Amino acid sequence: MPAPIEFYFDFSSPYGYLAAQEVEGVGRRQGREVVWKPFLLGAVFKTTGSAPLLDIPMKGDYAKRDMDRSARRIGVPFQLPTPFPFSAVAPARAFYWLADQNTMAAKDLAMALFHAAFGQGHDISAPDAVAKTAAMHGHDPAAVRAAHDDPAVKQRLKDEVQAAQDKGVFGSPFLLVDGEPFWGHDRLGDAEAWAKTGGW
Amino acid sequence: MPAPIEFYFDFSSPYGYLAAQEVEGVGRRQGREVVWKPFLLGAVFKTTGSAPLLDIPMKGDYAKRDMDRSARRIGVPFQLPTPFPFSAVAPARAFYWLADQNTMAAKDLAMALFHAAFGQGHDISAPDAVAKTAAMHGHDPAAVRAAHDDPAVKQRLKDEVQAAQDKGVFGSPFLLVDGEPFWGHDRLGDAEAWAKTGGW
Repeated sequence: MPAPIEFYFDFSSPYGYLAAQEVEGVGRRQGREVVWKPFLLGAVFKTTGSAPLLDIPMKGDYAKRDMDRSARRIGVPFQLPTPFPFSAVAPARAFYWLADQNTMAAKDLAMALFHAAFGQGHDISAPDAVAKTAAMHGHDPAAVRAAHDDPAVKQRLKDEVQAAQDKGVFGSPFLLVDGEPFWGHDRLGDAEAWAKTGGW
Repeated sequence: MPAPIEFYFDFSSPYGYLAAQEVEGVGRRQGREVVWKPFLLGAVFKTTGSAPLLDIPMKGDYAKRDMDRSARRIGVPFQLPTPFPFSAVAPARAFYWLADQNTMAAKDLAMALFHAAFGQGHDISAPDAVAKTAAMHGHDPAAVRAAHDDPAVKQRLKDEVQAAQDKGVFGSPFLLVDGEPFWGHDRLGDAEAWAKTGGW
């Protein structure tokens, strides 16, 4: 069994949302498990000196257009939620809390949260909003809400953010295929080719 | 006859070099002329607040790896010249001076300059280096060298840099297909699909 593909993303990343639509297909076609690893870009931006993409002159306008065009190309709805950018702490904590019980359920919740944010434009930054989305997918909203304030869950997310940074992850989406890094939704094709061929 | 594809690039851009290998193929397959438009990223970087890619922590190391990997994927040699980054003023002036006489010859010179820089690692920033490469392609080195100091040629490049910025070009490579912007070597596929289908 070949090693899993690691899929790093920030819940507030539009290109992370787009990659999430396609990454399981990559895994399926290449016979690889995909391990989802939400993290927080904020800490990395301090290291790389990056600003939020949409705030950058010229590049920001282009990015909005490119996100919309890329979503149309793969046939998924897309809008920027208000406010944007937003904090992805609450969705990421809920993800890891659930992933420790049921990996598939956590991926489903991640897709639901992404859809609420970038498909429907909702604010998913508040713990209550995350609990509400989770409730619609059969999870106990009180348990989700409590997990948000659980010191163990808080620490879990901190550890994952640090681990991502230690592996050189600096953007979203970001894939590691047998240790080879691929940054960006537009590198999914390269990542899949690497998984298929073992590299070139 | 559909409108030409506009291909903007900086001669000091590794991804510009990679795109230059493939962009004429895009034009050929889609029945479009490709108009090459070298410009200077430096002025744009002042607007977007960007730093040279390779100087950025984490992202710089990734970029070096990705450039190398992308070059291997399309089967062209790749190395970073010394010094890097370098000023692309001299190659860009030579290009426009020649393009006003013979478009095809100017593209050939551009490919030769790119190959000298990123295929062989030579320094192409000096006017004499540009004249030497041009001489190997049948051009009078003294005329190339004189063009570098010609006020009309200097102004021509300034106008092209301004025109690129006015069109929202902020990176290299950058394609305009019927006015639709595509930034990055990894967007060539999207740009070709747009040229083929008229957009989506």
